[in-house]
Amino acid sequence: MGITLQQAQAAIQAAHQKCLEMGVKMNIAVVDAGANLTAFIRMDDAWLGSLDISIRKAKTARYFDMPTGAIGGLSQPGGSLFGIEHSNGGLITFPGGLPIKDADGHVIGAIGVSGSTVEDDHAVAEAGMKAIEHQ
Amino acid sequence: MGITLQQAQAAIQAAHQKCLEMGVKMNIAVVDAGANLTAFIRMDDAWLGSLDISIRKAKTARYFDMPTGAIGGLSQPGGSLFGIEHSNGGLITFPGGLPIKDADGHVIGAIGVSGSTVEDDHAVAEAGMKAIEHQ
Amino acid sequence: MGITLQQAQAAIQAAHQKCLEMGVKMNIAVVDAGANLTAFIRMDDAWLGSLDISIRKAKTARYFDMPTGAIGGLSQPGGSLFGIEHSNGGLITFPGGLPIKDADGHVIGAIGVSGSTVEDDHAVAEAGMKAIEHQ
Amino acid sequence: MGITLQQAQAAIQAAHQKCLEMGVKMNIAVVDAGANLTAFIRMDDAWLGSLDISIRKAKTARYFDMPTGAIGGLSQPGGSLFGIEHSNGGLITFPGGLPIKDADGHVIGAIGVSGSTVEDDHAVAEAGMKAIEHQ
Repeated sequence: MGITLQQAQAAIQAAHQKCLEMGVKMNIAVVDAGANLTAFIRMDDAWLGSLDISIRKAKTARYFDMPTGAIGGLSQPGGSLFGIEHSNGGLITFPGGLPIKDADGHVIGAIGVSGSTVEDDHAVAEAGMKAIEHQ
Repeated sequence: MGITLQQAQAAIQAAHQKCLEMGVKMNIAVVDAGANLTAFIRMDDAWLGSLDISIRKAKTARYFDMPTGAIGGLSQPGGSLFGIEHSNGGLITFPGGLPIKDADGHVIGAIGVSGSTVEDDHAVAEAGMKAIEHQ
Repeated sequence: MGITLQQAQAAIQAAHQKCLEMGVKMNIAVVDAGANLTAFIRMDDAWLGSLDISIRKAKTARYFDMPTGAIGGLSQPGGSLFGIEHSNGGLITFPGGLPIKDADGHVIGAIGVSGSTVEDDHAVAEAGMKAIEHQ
Repeated sequence: MGITLQQAQAAIQAAHQKCLEMGVKMNIAVVDAGANLTAFIRMDDAWLGSLDISIRKAKTARYFDMPTGAIGGLSQPGGSLFGIEHSNGGLITFPGGLPIKDADGHVIGAIGVSGSTVEDDHAVAEAGMKAIEHQ
């Protein structure tokens, strides 16, 4: 459904390479169009709690076809989606999750990254996403 | 308990029709007086994450016999019901869920809609609710 | 992903019609290729506990692309898949769930039925499945 | 903890290669000494329900430092561990999960495979395990 294993592994590899360049230790997850895990790696000594977060970020990005941070902007106190994190068994709505599109603009999956600051997480996710979208 | 399948399907159909007029893709759920799912549809290409949210909205509206958005007004930081979303396996307290009453004003079920802005979600839920209440 | 809402509703309607002919009260669920709920109805006075079972049967049939009863044949004590029901948040492996294929033989979703004997459940699921496969 | 990402990826790659030789489509999971997911792949069109099972097999093998099938031999009706599958959020106790040891015989992680018969699942898990143990 959507992304192939070959594409998912290419995204993981590009994201991993980015981590090595940045000197960060991450959990990196890729889900398919059905929001099901397709490929995953956890770097040595990466935060243990980030394992679950990386997978939830990837799922959240596919659940709503937008960057996780965009949802977080709407789910703050007083925001229109306040509390949406309680749905779907637990969402993560801060940056680090991005949908992945094919050449026609259709969402074929998503990538989620966790293990450092949200800025770093986002940068690594973007590197993974671009490995597929810009092929 | 309360709403019949025939009524639930009438509500779903009216809500679906409203979606087509508005050009939105929604998940639409109807629960009975026991807050149990009675009828459900997911429109093609509707957000995957909205499936769970639509059902939670319908349940939340029946759990407290009020629009989900009214609960959300009380569950903000500092509000009297802050954190109520943690109960009942996870509530959704932003707009899009409405109780459905019979001619005598008794709540017989509820409808929950998710897939667009909360304003759109509410408008579709209202269309479904009115198909039963105003018969 | 896979089955359309229109197809899912056709399957539900055919299965519902079969229930009326047989004089049984059922919960009927259809999931798409991603095992996500696409359409659902619960007939008036159908067993409340069958709501969850019907959805799990549909998901189980899609998870392994085979009738639920076929899995149950392998998950008995001493069987090769003993205890598989503990996976995926809980499977149901007795009859009443069937995959639905398109004209090319690809699985596009599944139907799950619960509310009577497993023989009745299977007969109703088959009626729903055939409404799509034999179009 | 225990297995490194590099080792886990070597195990995944060897197991994947074995799948291609056997013509089977598998979900393959590797966990570390803490039973936390370290690497994972799902082959295109592998059973959706096997995603969860492969991860549970890997965890189960590490939880008790023995092949999953060995536990299943003890968890049958009348057996000394009857019902152990109810622990730890759900175990899978049929073949396809194997602990992975270092040169000193210490368990450093485990591999879990699901997607075909339990014999095939076991053969693929063994290929992955040997890529590390016999280095």
